[in-house]
Amino acid sequence: MTPFKLTEELISEIQQLIEEKRNTDLRLMMQEFHYADIAEIASELEVEEATYVIRLLDSEKTSDILAEMHEDTREAVLNNLTAKEIAGELEELDTDDAADIINELPKEIVQEVISEIEDKEHAKDIVDLLRYDEDSAGGLMAKELVKVNENWNVLTCVKEMRAQAENVTRVHSIYVVDDEDKLKGRLSLKDLLTTSTKTHVKDVYIPKVDSVNVNEKAEEVAKIMSKYDLEAIPVVDEIGRLVGRITIDDIVDVIREEADKDYQLAAGISQGVEADDSIWELTRARLPWLILGLFGGLGAAAIMGGFEEMISKHAVLFYFTPLIAAMAGNVGVQSSAIIVQGLANDDLKGSVSNRLIKEMLLALLNGLILAVLLLAFTWVWKGTFDTALAISLSLVVVIVVAGLIGTFIPLFLHQRNIDPAIATGPFITTSNDIFGILIYFWIAKLILGI
Amino acid sequence: MTPFKLTEELISEIQQLIEEKRNTDLRLMMQEFHYADIAEIASELEVEEATYVIRLLDSEKTSDILAEMHEDTREAVLNNLTAKEIAGELEELDTDDAADIINELPKEIVQEVISEIEDKEHAKDIVDLLRYDEDSAGGLMAKELVKVNENWNVLTCVKEMRAQAENVTRVHSIYVVDDEDKLKGRLSLKDLLTTSTKTHVKDVYIPKVDSVNVNEKAEEVAKIMSKYDLEAIPVVDEIGRLVGRITIDDIVDVIREEADKDYQLAAGISQGVEADDSIWELTRARLPWLILGLFGGLGAAAIMGGFEEMISKHAVLFYFTPLIAAMAGNVGVQSSAIIVQGLANDDLKGSVSNRLIKEMLLALLNGLILAVLLLAFTWVWKGTFDTALAISLSLVVVIVVAGLIGTFIPLFLHQRNIDPAIATGPFITTSNDIFGILIYFWIAKLILGI
Repeated sequence: MTPFKLTEELISEIQQLIEEKRNTDLRLMMQEFHYADIAEIASELEVEEATYVIRLLDSEKTSDILAEMHEDTREAVLNNLTAKEIAGELEELDTDDAADIINELPKEIVQEVISEIEDKEHAKDIVDLLRYDEDSAGGLMAKELVKVNENWNVLTCVKEMRAQAENVTRVHSIYVVDDEDKLKGRLSLKDLLTTSTKTHVKDVYIPKVDSVNVNEKAEEVAKIMSKYDLEAIPVVDEIGRLVGRITIDDIVDVIREEADKDYQLAAGISQGVEADDSIWELTRARLPWLILGLFGGLGAAAIMGGFEEMISKHAVLFYFTPLIAAMAGNVGVQSSAIIVQGLANDDLKGSVSNRLIKEMLLALLNGLILAVLLLAFTWVWKGTFDTALAISLSLVVVIVVAGLIGTFIPLFLHQRNIDPAIATGPFITTSNDIFGILIYFWIAKLILGI
Repeated sequence: MTPFKLTEELISEIQQLIEEKRNTDLRLMMQEFHYADIAEIASELEVEEATYVIRLLDSEKTSDILAEMHEDTREAVLNNLTAKEIAGELEELDTDDAADIINELPKEIVQEVISEIEDKEHAKDIVDLLRYDEDSAGGLMAKELVKVNENWNVLTCVKEMRAQAENVTRVHSIYVVDDEDKLKGRLSLKDLLTTSTKTHVKDVYIPKVDSVNVNEKAEEVAKIMSKYDLEAIPVVDEIGRLVGRITIDDIVDVIREEADKDYQLAAGISQGVEADDSIWELTRARLPWLILGLFGGLGAAAIMGGFEEMISKHAVLFYFTPLIAAMAGNVGVQSSAIIVQGLANDDLKGSVSNRLIKEMLLALLNGLILAVLLLAFTWVWKGTFDTALAISLSLVVVIVVAGLIGTFIPLFLHQRNIDPAIATGPFITTSNDIFGILIYFWIAKLILGI
């Protein structure tokens, strides 16, 4: 497989073909590319050019290109298409992708687009999906699946399946339902390959099948599917009727998005922005966390102002405030990150108090090692042992407290059903800066007896 | 589906059954659980108890339990088993999982375990896999797959496939090879369901098939599979022979591990530790970054020492050093996180200089807003306009420089083929602390004319 490479030459070659309206050449060229690659190409073209390409190719391919496109590019291209053209694209897509695209359309044209979809069954399925929350099993599932009735014999079953499979990109499992459409079990494709065609469905299906409720959270579905190594999972409604199916490729996206979100929160960025978003969007995602940091810094300044009398005698104490604040922040972020990740991966065992004791011991160990280094350096540099001792001892205490705060806050937020990921990052660093500096000056005052 | 819940009652019930050696009850109970759930249970049991359970159940199930177990639990349990017992478990596993387990075994017993595997073909396949790097396509792939010769007719083909499918958990695609085992294309299962049995393989196979080289990096394989929505990808050697297959469930693990690693690096933790690792392991992962932070803090202290003469006249400047350092750190982390993520997701377009200009404008906008807030606060609090102005102006410059450093460093590391993820976190915060404080005092000196 020669991997696809997006080059400037390629883009300008395509732009040339578009400009000269050499449709046959353009079509031939696009035939060679995977739809995911064309989606990448489209985001490098002008909107008018991308629209030209979409109009030129078969909707069997362009629907996949649109589904794969970057959201912003897709929005711009769809803006150029008529309701009838959009409906033609949705016709070719699986219901879940079609519903996702409809959710992005301006409200005033949704009605029209849906009414233009020729396959009324498909349209109905899409409309069904629109009512589910994006972050729920219902929001992830597609209506396309292969199901057979438990009362059929394998012959009927194979015939029906052939027809159904035409509409399903990947079959995975064959679900078995009763006359009321309630999920009873499954037939694996492997069974199909290795079982005689004379058997009855009732006698061969596997009655045990994992399923999720349509209202289950997307994150939870991802956990279940990756824990049990499932490639597809059926979705049932409140009374157990089979309503849809979620496939692993959608779950891969959920996992990536979840990880990206947590990573950004840890770095003090909200709202899932990307490098290519506008300066205004990026500012909205970043500024609130910086303002939080600013107030933290003002708090730290106010605390130091309260120890003003020290500055004449022990100016050196003030030189070390950034060090103390940085260490408090770093330790807090480390310990909270470990907890946040443990919570996300569901592998935190034991009680809160055990966690805190462990973190205390850990922070104490790290703190003592660092304090010895700091003591040696400061003593040599400034020559006053008592100041050096005061600074180093404070560092130990500050590190232990920072570790405990970093451990406790995400556990506490989790218990309150708040996403603990917001705790790692500016929130922890800021509060630890303030606590750290406060503790530092207190202890210094105590030891130096000012 | 009633989700599995690990409770203390369940654990003690199981422990009771083990203690009283009520094997039949224990077997019946375990029958109800999924192997992934039993793997979770095992990590809550004593090692001897977990070993008891593994010895009691059929190796068809226990092999999956072992494969799913937490590494530490598995290591302890395998330690209790004989080479022959371990070989019995490996017999049941797919080659990729078996190879992963062998890689964890102590070197001195590997030979013996392999020689105890009865299915010599299986043993040979496992040994083949052992030579690949864990983070490469070869390290991820399994030998199990379904392949047919292009010269067969569909009848032979179906017969052969049935036999092969017995050993393959999920069939996905049927790969087509020539007489030299070179990958030619694929037959989809769907085609199989919808094509007449009289056709020849040569006439129906799809000649276009994505594949990866056996030496491709795991991360790259993950990108390809999720970009092209593949659920399995064949792996070929240097001359195009089909040597294995990677399935999406392994890729889900790669994505999770990659995300966890980046998240930890951003938080200043190396080596992929977990909350339940020992204090010693956690210290090794955390301490180096803290020492880096310590040196940064010492650097900052040394810089302030160089501006000692200021402290008598403008002590207030020193109160704001934690604020300046914190803001420099926060902005640096924000901008580097955006770049790191853009690089990881392959969606950074445009030149380095464009990125830097954009970040400069963004930082300038954020910096000005924050500086106005800071100016107002400091002026009111301290009443001296020139000091307030010096602090606020410095803040703007510091934020812009921090943003540029945060943008530039990951781009630079990436260009040098170093993982840019190490840049977000203590590395950036520490260097930005130092630069920030240096710039701050320089500008203050300039403005206040000291």
